[in-house]
Amino acid sequence: MNERVMMKHGAGGRAMRRLVEEVFVRGAPDGLPAGSVGLAAMDDGAAIPIGDGRWLVITTDSHVVSPIFFPGGDIGRLAISGTVNDLAVMGATSALALTCAVILEEGFSWAELERVQASLRATCKEASASIVTGDTKVMGRGEMDGIVLNTTGVAITDRVVRDSGLRPGDRIVVTGTLGDHGMAVLATRHALGLQGNLRSDVAPIASMIAHVLSRHGPALTAMKDPTRGGLASALSEMAQKSGVGVVLDQAALPITDEVRAAGELLGIDPLVVANEGKAVIGVRAEEADAVVATLREHPLGKKAAIVGTCTGARPGALVLDTGFGRRRVTEPEGEPLPRIC
Amino acid sequence: MNERVMMKHGAGGRAMRRLVEEVFVRGAPDGLPAGSVGLAAMDDGAAIPIGDGRWLVITTDSHVVSPIFFPGGDIGRLAISGTVNDLAVMGATSALALTCAVILEEGFSWAELERVQASLRATCKEASASIVTGDTKVMGRGEMDGIVLNTTGVAITDRVVRDSGLRPGDRIVVTGTLGDHGMAVLATRHALGLQGNLRSDVAPIASMIAHVLSRHGPALTAMKDPTRGGLASALSEMAQKSGVGVVLDQAALPITDEVRAAGELLGIDPLVVANEGKAVIGVRAEEADAVVATLREHPLGKKAAIVGTCTGARPGALVLDTGFGRRRVTEPEGEPLPRIC
Repeated sequence: MNERVMMKHGAGGRAMRRLVEEVFVRGAPDGLPAGSVGLAAMDDGAAIPIGDGRWLVITTDSHVVSPIFFPGGDIGRLAISGTVNDLAVMGATSALALTCAVILEEGFSWAELERVQASLRATCKEASASIVTGDTKVMGRGEMDGIVLNTTGVAITDRVVRDSGLRPGDRIVVTGTLGDHGMAVLATRHALGLQGNLRSDVAPIASMIAHVLSRHGPALTAMKDPTRGGLASALSEMAQKSGVGVVLDQAALPITDEVRAAGELLGIDPLVVANEGKAVIGVRAEEADAVVATLREHPLGKKAAIVGTCTGARPGALVLDTGFGRRRVTEPEGEPLPRIC
Repeated sequence: MNERVMMKHGAGGRAMRRLVEEVFVRGAPDGLPAGSVGLAAMDDGAAIPIGDGRWLVITTDSHVVSPIFFPGGDIGRLAISGTVNDLAVMGATSALALTCAVILEEGFSWAELERVQASLRATCKEASASIVTGDTKVMGRGEMDGIVLNTTGVAITDRVVRDSGLRPGDRIVVTGTLGDHGMAVLATRHALGLQGNLRSDVAPIASMIAHVLSRHGPALTAMKDPTRGGLASALSEMAQKSGVGVVLDQAALPITDEVRAAGELLGIDPLVVANEGKAVIGVRAEEADAVVATLREHPLGKKAAIVGTCTGARPGALVLDTGFGRRRVTEPEGEPLPRIC
C-alpha cells in the first residue's frame, strides 16, 4: 500500500468522504452519551446532551481559501460564517463561543493580518458571536501558504436538527441562490473579468435560521450547510442518510445569470460548488410555502425557493428533472478546484 | 508600516504575546457574561458560566511539530495531550468533547496518516476523551508541509483555576522534570545522537490534576501548562498577571541528565523549551509538601517538586536563586526553535 493523499481528498465530495470514513471514523470508539450526534454521523457538527433537555453543539473547520480576499468577502468573514452556519443548521442558532487558531507563513504582512482580524470582528458582531480563545503558530516560508484559520464554535440548544431526517413527501427548500461563493472565488482565481456582479454569498445566517425555526420548527425535518461540493454534495448526503430519493426541479433552482455565465465559461456546474451563506432545508409538504414566505422576510432569504421533493423510490438517489426528462446527479468526486473555503 | 510576521511571533514568548495583544486582543469586544475568562485573559483557555454554578471551558491549539514522529510521541499524541492538559489546568479535568481538524499536504502518505490516527485514538483512550467532530482540508505540494492538526476541547467544570491567582508566600510546584519535550524534538531534528534516554514527556495529565484537585483544591491558587517558551515563559506570565515576584530555587528544579546534556550541546536553557506533560501549580505554603506527596502518588507525578516561592517584592519578576546569588530570568523572546509543538 503506497496510497497518497490527493487534492480531491479535501474537496468535500465522495473522495473526502471515503478518506474520512476509512481513516477517521471506522472503528472509532464513540464513548458519547445516548442521544448524541457523534463523529460517525458526519453531520455539520456534533451534539452532546448536557442535562435539562439541552445539547452542546460543536463544530470545527479549517479555512484555506485562496485568494484570501475575494469579491464579497475574505478568509475572516468565511471562517466566522462557516462556523456559525454549521451550528445554526444543527438547530443551535445562538453561538456561545468561538475559538480562532491562526497559522501564518513567515513573512506574512502584518497589515493584511490586521485586515483579516478586522473582518473576523465585524463578522462576529454581525453574527452576535465572540472569539473567546485562540492560538497562533508560524511556519517557515514554503512550509505554509499565507494564512490558515481554524475556527471552532460551541452553542447550547434544546433541539437538534440533523441532516438525516428527510421523509418521502418532504419538500427541499434552499434559502437563496446557489453557487455564488465557489464561482466568485474561481472567477477571481482565473481572472475571468466577471467580477462585476459575481460575488460570494458568504454571510452568517443564524438569525435567519432562528427566525424560521421559531415559526416552523416542528415542520423542519433536516438541515445542512451546502459548502464544499455544493448543493449536489449536500443533498446526496442528506438523501443517502435519510434513505429517500430527491427529485430536483431544474427550473426552480435559483441561480444568478452571473453564476450561470461563469459556470459555462469554466465548464463547472453551479450545483457542485460551495455556498457560504445558505441552508438546505427539508420541510413537511403542507408547510413548505409558509417556510419560504418566512425565509423571504429575512434580508438573507429573499431568493428562498422550493427546489425539490423527497420520494420513497430510489432511496439515496438525487435526480434532476430538467423539464425534458430526468437524469441522475451523482455526488461529485470533490469540489472541482481546491482551496475554495 | 511594512512589518511582517516572523518565526518568533509563533514561538510562545514575548514576541508572540505582543502580536496577540496588539492584533487579536486589543479592542476586541468581550460580549461574555460576568465571571467569564475571555480572550483578554490570555489564559490556557476560556471559561464561560452556563448556569447552575457551572462553567464551559474551551481551548484550541494548532499543532505544527516537525518531525511529526519523535522519541516519546508524535503529532497525534501531542494534539490530544495539549488540548486535554489546557482544559485540566483550567480546572476542567473531564473533557466533554474534542474536535480534530486535519490539514494535509497533497502527496502525504496514507499509511502515515493512519499511524497518526491510531495515536490520536490511543491517546484519547488514555485521556478518557473522544473526538466528536472534525474537518479535512488538503493543500497543494509546497503550500503546506506535511500535516497540521488543530484540536479544540470543551469541558464543564464547577470551579475554574486561573493562571493569575498567585499570592505572596505561595509555593511553586512543578509536576515533574522540565524541558523533556523541547529537547527531545530539537535533538532529533539536529540528529544529536542523544535519543537513547531523551524522550518527550508528552502525555495527558488530566487524571493527575483531578487527583490533586480532589484532595487539595482550595489550596491551589493558580495553574498553567508550560508548553512553548517552557517554565520561564509560563512563570513569567503567571507572575505578571498575579502581581507577585517568583524566586526559583535552581537546585530544586527537576531536570534529567540527558536534558541537561542536550541543553549544553545546543546552548539552550531547558527552562525555555516546551513541556507537554507537566503543570506549574501555585500552592498555599502550608499545604505544598502535601500537594507534592499527592502528585507523587500518580505515575506521571513521581518527580513533582517545590521549585520556588512567591514574594511581594519585585512584582512580575522571575528570579533564579543559583545558590551563589540571584539573577533575573527574562521572559524569552520565543522558543529558541520553531515548530516544537
